[in-house]
Amino acid sequence: MPAFSRLVRFLARDGRTYYGDAILPHGISDISKARQARIVKGDIFGIHDVTDDVADIRLLLAPLALDDVRTVRCLGLNYALHAKESKMPLPKYPVLFYKPITSLAGPTDPIPIHPLAQEGTGLDYECELVAVIGKTCADVPESKALDYVLGYAVGNDISHRDWQIKRGGGQWGLGKGFNGWAPWGPGIVSSRLIGDPQTLKITTKLNGKTMQESNTADMIFNIKKTIASLSQGTTLLPGDIIFTGTPQGVGMGRNPQVWLQDGDVVEVELEQVGTCTNTVEFGSKPGPRL
Amino acid sequence: MPAFSRLVRFLARDGRTYYGDAILPHGISDISKARQARIVKGDIFGIHDVTDDVADIRLLLAPLALDDVRTVRCLGLNYALHAKESKMPLPKYPVLFYKPITSLAGPTDPIPIHPLAQEGTGLDYECELVAVIGKTCADVPESKALDYVLGYAVGNDISHRDWQIKRGGGQWGLGKGFNGWAPWGPGIVSSRLIGDPQTLKITTKLNGKTMQESNTADMIFNIKKTIASLSQGTTLLPGDIIFTGTPQGVGMGRNPQVWLQDGDVVEVELEQVGTCTNTVEFGSKPGPRL
Repeated sequence: MPAFSRLVRFLARDGRTYYGDAILPHGISDISKARQARIVKGDIFGIHDVTDDVADIRLLLAPLALDDVRTVRCLGLNYALHAKESKMPLPKYPVLFYKPITSLAGPTDPIPIHPLAQEGTGLDYECELVAVIGKTCADVPESKALDYVLGYAVGNDISHRDWQIKRGGGQWGLGKGFNGWAPWGPGIVSSRLIGDPQTLKITTKLNGKTMQESNTADMIFNIKKTIASLSQGTTLLPGDIIFTGTPQGVGMGRNPQVWLQDGDVVEVELEQVGTCTNTVEFGSKPGPRL
Repeated sequence: MPAFSRLVRFLARDGRTYYGDAILPHGISDISKARQARIVKGDIFGIHDVTDDVADIRLLLAPLALDDVRTVRCLGLNYALHAKESKMPLPKYPVLFYKPITSLAGPTDPIPIHPLAQEGTGLDYECELVAVIGKTCADVPESKALDYVLGYAVGNDISHRDWQIKRGGGQWGLGKGFNGWAPWGPGIVSSRLIGDPQTLKITTKLNGKTMQESNTADMIFNIKKTIASLSQGTTLLPGDIIFTGTPQGVGMGRNPQVWLQDGDVVEVELEQVGTCTNTVEFGSKPGPRL
């Protein structure tokens, strides 16, 4: 069981990067509002301590360092109303795809749009609950599945519908995997604090306007079922991350359709966790964020 | 440029695991025949030495340790005659999907078939050239693409067609990612030795009978085009692995179709690299191979 309550990774005022346990102002649950954290020392998946050293947060980073992430799995069509808006039948098995680890980015990083992804139409947002695996497991029964979760965060599964659907031969890889197309954070709330992950409000705001508004109760494969299913014959590792699908209200599902434009500000929020706020940048060079 | 010629990872007679540079018997190019290797010390993606210490090879392991692998990308329908047997049009862009790193296994490991993957029909083999990225890169032009390749190996993209095609909502993730479903090896031949990766014979034998027999010249997206394409807006990292697709002759494409059975021995071979020989095991527990 992790010792932290709300794990953050941050650039401190001393110019160094730390893991920390976020200190929240009274009455606030959005980790993005934290200005200080207790430094966490040790292996966040193993033996670690929340120290008494308090550091000032200059910038929140992606909650796990790239070296601490193993595989990023994602589910498609995992909210009932989103499956409906996509005119797809409810899936009988999880619709599993992957993003490369280099798509991960921090909770306030710009979302770089490569020139190839400025072609055609279909740049879209997807707010998602992100589950982080904390312990090695395989063939997990549903009844034990949450024991392997380190905690929960919120993420944005940025997608380009033309590349995803029309150009990839049916596989979604090309339209989902660009650098920085999976901002996540603002921190990882321990599963000790979130007993039931199926009761959380989840939303997307685009330039301040609510576009997606749902609850994780609408998931088709809830977190227990997802971990039980994905672990069949497949070892999940500490540092594996699961983007668990998005609810209705994506740009593709709207009438008229809404596509992200240069300069748009997208905010995804998960109750008890907080907010990632990212700006779409057509001009920025999508170099490695390592 | 790596100092080694044929990188292997192996269990030595002293019970320890090493990286080494395979020593081949005179006139032999198949790394699986190596019985000794010069121990390699240091960072195989950075500064390393091929030492004068020679160790006896007891067992060849997957050529990269799991901690040295980042992301496993795979291409679908990347040989012209295979696209034809699959009754699919030639893809205009690479058909990109992923396997989790836990699917990787060694060149003689059994292929464990989880009870769920014993359901239905469609257990299949796919011999593939595997390219290993050696240096961080993004937006690579074709003319420079091979500079970022550490070397080449051969792999078997084990697939279950029912799970891949019928049950995954169109995404291939569920039918490709089981533990041990990407045996590869027997070693990584430095790109210094293989100047042109598009001239290599590639074959699969099933219980000694040739089932796939082609040449990497039939690739639709050759290695240069593949790396140039996959790196657009996407950083490739040292330890990224690319399974570059399979030629015609898979079980699904045959008439009548041929599916792998318990006890079958599958041998994939790439010219100048060598052979992976793996036995299909319905009984073995597919635990983590870490």
